[in-house]
Amino acid sequence: MRTVYCGQVNLEHVEQSVTLCGWVNKRRDLGGLIFVDLRDREGIVQVVFDPDNKDVFEVANSLRNEYCVQLTGQVRARPESQINKQMATGEVELIATELTILNASAPLALDSNQENSEEQRLKYRYLDLRRPVMSDRIKFRSKVTSAVRRFLDDNGFLDIETPILTAATPEGARDYLVPSRTHKGKFFALPQSPQLFKQLLMMSGFDRYYQIVKCFRDEDLRADRQPEFTQIDIETSFMTSAEVMAKTEEMIRDLFKQLLDVDLGQFPSMPYSEAMRRFGSDKPDLRNPLELVDVADLLKEVEFKVFSGPANDPEGRVAVIRVPGGASLSRKQIDEYGKYVGIYGAKGLAWMKINGAAAGDVQSPIAKFLNEDIIAQLIARTEAADGDILLFGADNETVVAEAMGALRLKLGEDFELVEDCWKPLWVVDFPMFEKHDGGLAAIHHPFTAPVGVTPEQLEADPANALSDAYDMVLNGVELGGGSVRIHDQAMQAAAFRVLGISDEEAREKFGFLLDALQFGAPPHAGLAFGLDRLIMLMTGATSIRDVMAFPKTTTAACPLTDAPSVANPAALAELGITTQVEAKEDDA
Amino acid sequence: MRTVYCGQVNLEHVEQSVTLCGWVNKRRDLGGLIFVDLRDREGIVQVVFDPDNKDVFEVANSLRNEYCVQLTGQVRARPESQINKQMATGEVELIATELTILNASAPLALDSNQENSEEQRLKYRYLDLRRPVMSDRIKFRSKVTSAVRRFLDDNGFLDIETPILTAATPEGARDYLVPSRTHKGKFFALPQSPQLFKQLLMMSGFDRYYQIVKCFRDEDLRADRQPEFTQIDIETSFMTSAEVMAKTEEMIRDLFKQLLDVDLGQFPSMPYSEAMRRFGSDKPDLRNPLELVDVADLLKEVEFKVFSGPANDPEGRVAVIRVPGGASLSRKQIDEYGKYVGIYGAKGLAWMKINGAAAGDVQSPIAKFLNEDIIAQLIARTEAADGDILLFGADNETVVAEAMGALRLKLGEDFELVEDCWKPLWVVDFPMFEKHDGGLAAIHHPFTAPVGVTPEQLEADPANALSDAYDMVLNGVELGGGSVRIHDQAMQAAAFRVLGISDEEAREKFGFLLDALQFGAPPHAGLAFGLDRLIMLMTGATSIRDVMAFPKTTTAACPLTDAPSVANPAALAELGITTQVEAKEDDA
Repeated sequence: MRTVYCGQVNLEHVEQSVTLCGWVNKRRDLGGLIFVDLRDREGIVQVVFDPDNKDVFEVANSLRNEYCVQLTGQVRARPESQINKQMATGEVELIATELTILNASAPLALDSNQENSEEQRLKYRYLDLRRPVMSDRIKFRSKVTSAVRRFLDDNGFLDIETPILTAATPEGARDYLVPSRTHKGKFFALPQSPQLFKQLLMMSGFDRYYQIVKCFRDEDLRADRQPEFTQIDIETSFMTSAEVMAKTEEMIRDLFKQLLDVDLGQFPSMPYSEAMRRFGSDKPDLRNPLELVDVADLLKEVEFKVFSGPANDPEGRVAVIRVPGGASLSRKQIDEYGKYVGIYGAKGLAWMKINGAAAGDVQSPIAKFLNEDIIAQLIARTEAADGDILLFGADNETVVAEAMGALRLKLGEDFELVEDCWKPLWVVDFPMFEKHDGGLAAIHHPFTAPVGVTPEQLEADPANALSDAYDMVLNGVELGGGSVRIHDQAMQAAAFRVLGISDEEAREKFGFLLDALQFGAPPHAGLAFGLDRLIMLMTGATSIRDVMAFPKTTTAACPLTDAPSVANPAALAELGITTQVEAKEDDA
Repeated sequence: MRTVYCGQVNLEHVEQSVTLCGWVNKRRDLGGLIFVDLRDREGIVQVVFDPDNKDVFEVANSLRNEYCVQLTGQVRARPESQINKQMATGEVELIATELTILNASAPLALDSNQENSEEQRLKYRYLDLRRPVMSDRIKFRSKVTSAVRRFLDDNGFLDIETPILTAATPEGARDYLVPSRTHKGKFFALPQSPQLFKQLLMMSGFDRYYQIVKCFRDEDLRADRQPEFTQIDIETSFMTSAEVMAKTEEMIRDLFKQLLDVDLGQFPSMPYSEAMRRFGSDKPDLRNPLELVDVADLLKEVEFKVFSGPANDPEGRVAVIRVPGGASLSRKQIDEYGKYVGIYGAKGLAWMKINGAAAGDVQSPIAKFLNEDIIAQLIARTEAADGDILLFGADNETVVAEAMGALRLKLGEDFELVEDCWKPLWVVDFPMFEKHDGGLAAIHHPFTAPVGVTPEQLEADPANALSDAYDMVLNGVELGGGSVRIHDQAMQAAAFRVLGISDEEAREKFGFLLDALQFGAPPHAGLAFGLDRLIMLMTGATSIRDVMAFPKTTTAACPLTDAPSVANPAALAELGITTQVEAKEDDA
């Protein structure tokens, strides 16, 4: 029905007749002529209707915005004065010779000239997706998945599908459940990831697996989360963590080069402990030059309990952020930052303005608690200069990391310190376990392998064990993470014991994985990338909802299809379930 | 950890040292040496352990089947006499210089020398998938999806993801339901296809969409069906049915050429009515030369009511299959075929053996009802020859088509008439509607466009309307089907009225689609292929379960993960649902 896309008409077509299909993006009547900007997925081209061509002109006269038409016209070069450098097709225009209206359009339900509410945008998503900024993101997403697949195909990875209707997986978030009709009273779970299946595929010998796959978590959606999201899921056999990291780093580097012409270079690697110490985060944004500087050793003896308490507590921490030029902050602004760190549990924010190089020239409500020598050492260690401010966090390690880590990001933005560039990073050497309810919990998942210990050593000193895990971070966003998995039964049993998982519970939950470890399970390792987050970062979108064609609202509903909705009572009877709440159709 | 795959060691590696990782496929001790066939996903290579290398030999001596090892060895060419032409690596072998056992293996839970029950195979699927016949299929599947994606990418199709948690779709099978926690009492449905979403994407202007996507149907699984299956889902704007067919035919032709080196040639096209008439099926297997021959016109006046009844009924049909050489069938064999057609509702199977060219030389229990002239005409029309048999079906059209269509397939197999080749076919010109419960039902779905009628004409004579739909059939298997969709509101309203769907019901079920049609919806058309079925056909597997990594049993359960299973009562409470049946863990 067409010979070329609107957005691809160019000087090569001049004096040719071309046929286009598309939508009326704009109509203008000028000097007796009708000008129509015709739009399709590749762009926009200008069409001119001349009243001399009476029949076609008459049809054109009925055109309104968003009418869908088929149009034939003669391409001509625009006169120099009318060339539009802003448009890809700005050097040409069409003189229409034929016009068929394929479909009329009512005035759009979404106003293109003003911000629409998210509810409206999602209800009329098919119109929202006509906006070039949105369609460009969806098109870009398709390019990304295509490039990722080609890379993985070319590197011997096999695309293998794993089930969506399955058993609960070990990720620990809330599962979506699906009632079974043939086994009444029982439920499938939608997978939070294909973790166990991909490990089983390694035990089958597939060696290199990948899948771009939907995963599901029934979580509260306060943050930028979606009930279903997409992972680039990867697993390999006989590769070390260094090899997995090198291969997936190459994939991401190729992707950025190919689609954004950005060279990410070699990714540096940083231990978790260093990331927490310097940046208060396990996904530091290295574009931000601010750092946390530890000063507890200087403050053990001071009178000020807020400092000396944590400084003398083995689980306490005192850290400083030096903000260049921060002495200009008003009392009120500092108070605002105090409130901000309060969100993360900090009880206050001590500060010290540097008014000169000498220790005596500081301005600070806490200066009276500190002697000149300590102040001098603080200034020396933080390399503070005239006009800077030091902001102090003192509490237990977790609160200091979270509060000062968040403050660092906020200060970076407020002081416009964040470079406009790409800063990738591997974070490695995570602890195996963290404290949780008086016991230990796995930081990754219970199948993550420790580094360099025997099962006995792991059990003897779990708190100090490091895992063979790695997270890829880009500009402060965790793009993906993975680990070497345990492939040895004795090690797996030790890990379960550390986690307080009884043999019986382990059998019940992961029996098939434990079984599988008996039969020559190979060493294996893998990684999963969050595709939505990756696309968001690459397109500069501010929400993952803007890079998904049909996302849900923050209450996990779809205003377009009205999902979820009231089910047919007969269907529920067949499933053998009843709802305790009577839902009304207009609730959603 | 390795330098080359086992299956890829060849003469080029001779005198090199290579490192392999894999599994002990077989161990033989012979003449003081140990021979190990080492297997990985690419194949098998022979490794020799010499007792002179004492340390390595000792480790080798502990090897059992399915041990996972890392091994370094010197590659050497086998002496002429020991070359194994059956093996890809049969010209070489390795002399082991280093050996590390990565993991031991218990004796396998699946016996490789005997048939295992499907239950056992699925419970130990990760072992079942080690069998080369199974792993080859899964690897082949990955090649197919990769080739399909490349074709579609290269043809400007965009890979766009649609939701899995959504509203009921219009396919009409039973939906899987997912209770919503944030909207208690309401349910998502898992999609039976992305039909409506892909149509909406056309309305957004994406022009060419594809997705290789999971679909879900909660059906009884008697036939070779699975609760979740995979579609190659395609939709286009501004393409006619002929264009969609040409493009997707090219895709399948390329796929067969590329992966099987099979040239499928141009696909012929056949109207639905012809397919039903000649083959009693809308997906005829053209490798089978048998055909149904209509003879009702010859039998209107005969005394035999079994024939004359249907022959005079406008909805009746009398059809004959001539089986070359079929006169050799015994009475008992014919009775068996009579029982077989009974499954499809036929009340009996009349027959006539041809013992000579003359009409008098027939042998048949019904010959007495037919005069010589009629017998002669039957013989002439069916081109029956000496030694053939004619088998008669007489009933209403549906029963004759189903029973004789099935009989045709069975006879084709029994008489070994089915050619070993590939016979693709497009079936087109389907009726829009079929009779159903006294009204009309859509043969495809209610969004399928009719051919060459106005909305008024469609409503005036729906029974004779043909749809702009097309099914791709290969060797009697429906590979895919699709249609041009209605993009005009008036036509859609007419189609709903024909189907007896009230405006209110249409609004409630498909309101968002009807809304979308108002805003310049483009002409659009699409198609979906069943990926599992396609792979089954291409690999020669006899069940779709054998081309899926982790299929379910025929009762929709997974013996590997024990899904579905009893849910945590707290989780059900959060969802606001209760089960009427108390399920026991060991029920599944």
